[in-house]
Amino acid sequence: MLGNIIVGQSGGPTAVINSSLAGVFKTAKDSGCPVIYGMRNGIEGLLRERVVDLSEKIKSGLDIELLKRTPSSFLGTCRYKMPDYTKDEEPYKKVFSILKKMDIKYFLYIGGNDSMDTIDKLSKYSDATNSDVRFIGIPKTIDNDLAMTDHTPGYGSAAKYIAATVKEIICDARIYELESVNIVEIMGRDAGWLTCASALSRSEDCDGPDLICLPETVFDYNSFMNKIHEIRKEKTAITIAVSEGIKTADGKYVCEENGRSMSEDVFGHKMLGGTALYLSDFIGRELGIKSRGIVFSTLQRCASHLVSRCDITEAYIAGAAGVHLAINGETGKMVTFDRVCDNPYQIKTGCCPASAVANIEKKVPLDWLTNDNYYVSEKFFDYARPLIIGELTPFMVDGLPRHLFIG
Amino acid sequence: MLGNIIVGQSGGPTAVINSSLAGVFKTAKDSGCPVIYGMRNGIEGLLRERVVDLSEKIKSGLDIELLKRTPSSFLGTCRYKMPDYTKDEEPYKKVFSILKKMDIKYFLYIGGNDSMDTIDKLSKYSDATNSDVRFIGIPKTIDNDLAMTDHTPGYGSAAKYIAATVKEIICDARIYELESVNIVEIMGRDAGWLTCASALSRSEDCDGPDLICLPETVFDYNSFMNKIHEIRKEKTAITIAVSEGIKTADGKYVCEENGRSMSEDVFGHKMLGGTALYLSDFIGRELGIKSRGIVFSTLQRCASHLVSRCDITEAYIAGAAGVHLAINGETGKMVTFDRVCDNPYQIKTGCCPASAVANIEKKVPLDWLTNDNYYVSEKFFDYARPLIIGELTPFMVDGLPRHLFIG
Repeated sequence: MLGNIIVGQSGGPTAVINSSLAGVFKTAKDSGCPVIYGMRNGIEGLLRERVVDLSEKIKSGLDIELLKRTPSSFLGTCRYKMPDYTKDEEPYKKVFSILKKMDIKYFLYIGGNDSMDTIDKLSKYSDATNSDVRFIGIPKTIDNDLAMTDHTPGYGSAAKYIAATVKEIICDARIYELESVNIVEIMGRDAGWLTCASALSRSEDCDGPDLICLPETVFDYNSFMNKIHEIRKEKTAITIAVSEGIKTADGKYVCEENGRSMSEDVFGHKMLGGTALYLSDFIGRELGIKSRGIVFSTLQRCASHLVSRCDITEAYIAGAAGVHLAINGETGKMVTFDRVCDNPYQIKTGCCPASAVANIEKKVPLDWLTNDNYYVSEKFFDYARPLIIGELTPFMVDGLPRHLFIG
Repeated sequence: MLGNIIVGQSGGPTAVINSSLAGVFKTAKDSGCPVIYGMRNGIEGLLRERVVDLSEKIKSGLDIELLKRTPSSFLGTCRYKMPDYTKDEEPYKKVFSILKKMDIKYFLYIGGNDSMDTIDKLSKYSDATNSDVRFIGIPKTIDNDLAMTDHTPGYGSAAKYIAATVKEIICDARIYELESVNIVEIMGRDAGWLTCASALSRSEDCDGPDLICLPETVFDYNSFMNKIHEIRKEKTAITIAVSEGIKTADGKYVCEENGRSMSEDVFGHKMLGGTALYLSDFIGRELGIKSRGIVFSTLQRCASHLVSRCDITEAYIAGAAGVHLAINGETGKMVTFDRVCDNPYQIKTGCCPASAVANIEKKVPLDWLTNDNYYVSEKFFDYARPLIIGELTPFMVDGLPRHLFIG
């Protein structure tokens, strides 16, 4: 007889995080888990016993399909960092007493590297206290910066949205005879995976962005302006994709130049923003031509109307694989994707210790960039192209995509 | 025997302006016009004889379908203002000599109120000089601010994009337990039609934006903050949609408050931008809560991956109707839409003098707003809902929408 299961979502939203939730729910149900609980707002909600019986929220096959088409975290999220249990055992005692009270044997957490830190700590406490609860992490992040896995669910859909939107922005820009520069600001604090995805717009009917600037390389104003001078000789409408987290040689974020104060989140990350606006003002001043900053902001992580079929299917599979791992007795692990082949694309699921993912950021390899660091090479295209393939038709009601709302 | 025809595109891009071009091309071809010319970059290109034979650019039925799915102006655009011909006849002589040389009898111009000014002036000069060239305008603008027509092609698709994206932003925002305010900045200098469209996101699964602020009403900081205080009692994640052109009682744009200098275009319009950023900083300072400005920028006018089927079909019909008007001997007119019925939605095409549209902006009627001016009433919903209905599947290649590129 299987035990009860609980699942939570943590960190920033993606367009497909709920597809992983659907995968957990359906697989746990089909496997015979008696009750499938959902934490409201992750571990932070669990600590206050804010828990729902998911069968009351996902009532039909149609609901499962709606859930897959719903962006952001159906259950709500949190950014809560578990303390070191040798220093502060209280939250651990609380979590385990709640799990015991609800007779929960499997704890699944869908999130990024901070969430894998939570899985790692909980599983280690579980071992230390001889608990039999299993803790499994399911990868999720648009940033694609998790170690040990070929890529992360959420990245493909954000990449598809970014590439499609950059393609449309280039269409929009190239119709004028006047010179112009568009700077597109894309999420990515330390890893430029999403900014690289803008290059996927390069195709038979589109030049793609003319330059990309990543946090993996040092941003240098002189070399940047020299590149723009070169491109101006060839074309009037220039499009540049930049990561929000690009920094100059002195380690300062470009977006800090604009003088706006930057607050920090609970993990001590500075809240970035303003890179595109600053650079477009800078270019406008330096060159006296029309320049515009375009910021994708939260649109790039919640555009469920344009998901990648590959991504949303894999997100579901990751959720299902997490349930299988837990049932098979694994703990402290994260589901991974191992690439079998680029072309035709094939992956298989695997797993790794959550500790190998926690608090680590996987960056774009520098040998996936062109020599001048201002573009991606064929290696990136081979890697990323399969991840944006295919669509999932939204369910349209009154002209708009319908979502499942927890209420 | 019919004469040759020329068509141009002017002003800002939309997601469906090329569907009107497709309607002109196909209808002119089917009607038997010998040559169908396209102006590159509107009247400005024509003055330099930058003209293409469209049959060489649109070669098949598949090309017509691709053209309909291509955002922005296939032919390029301009923002050129024709002078008063009694003061400067030169450009008129030039245009008419080029038209004569190419044996062109019908001149179609797809654009907004500035473009209708061009149609009006050219047709009046044509009358004054006894030319037999016919001049017809085809309405186009995401802003929906053209007089004499129920609505304009381009509005429905921008409205659908805005409503769908606001819905996704609300999903993204409501998952946190922390209080937050998102300010979404939407295009609209003097007319708030697009900002109103954000309210279409209100549905069974979504609250919609909590406030909307339009250029039609005076923006008042006190009443705005009072409204936010009221909403904070009910919910944690607040979403506000504002037009870029909102002004305070002294006639000053809110976006002028941030101190960035504002340049002007050739029609003397100030280039707006920064309203959301300014207001989100203001709210963050006043309330000490997380606030974010999200600017849709050019994304809202070129999102051909999410067009309204109603809109793209009507844009095509408007192009076709323009050809019929010209062939039937009309001149100095613009194609209009007259609404026959709201529910079920029916329209028919008509026409009006271009002079009745030129340089006039149709605003949102104040009695379509709620009493406090911070929301739209049922009248707006009845008007706008039909305009966003239906989809047109993009042609996807390598995971991205394929467009037709003039090269």
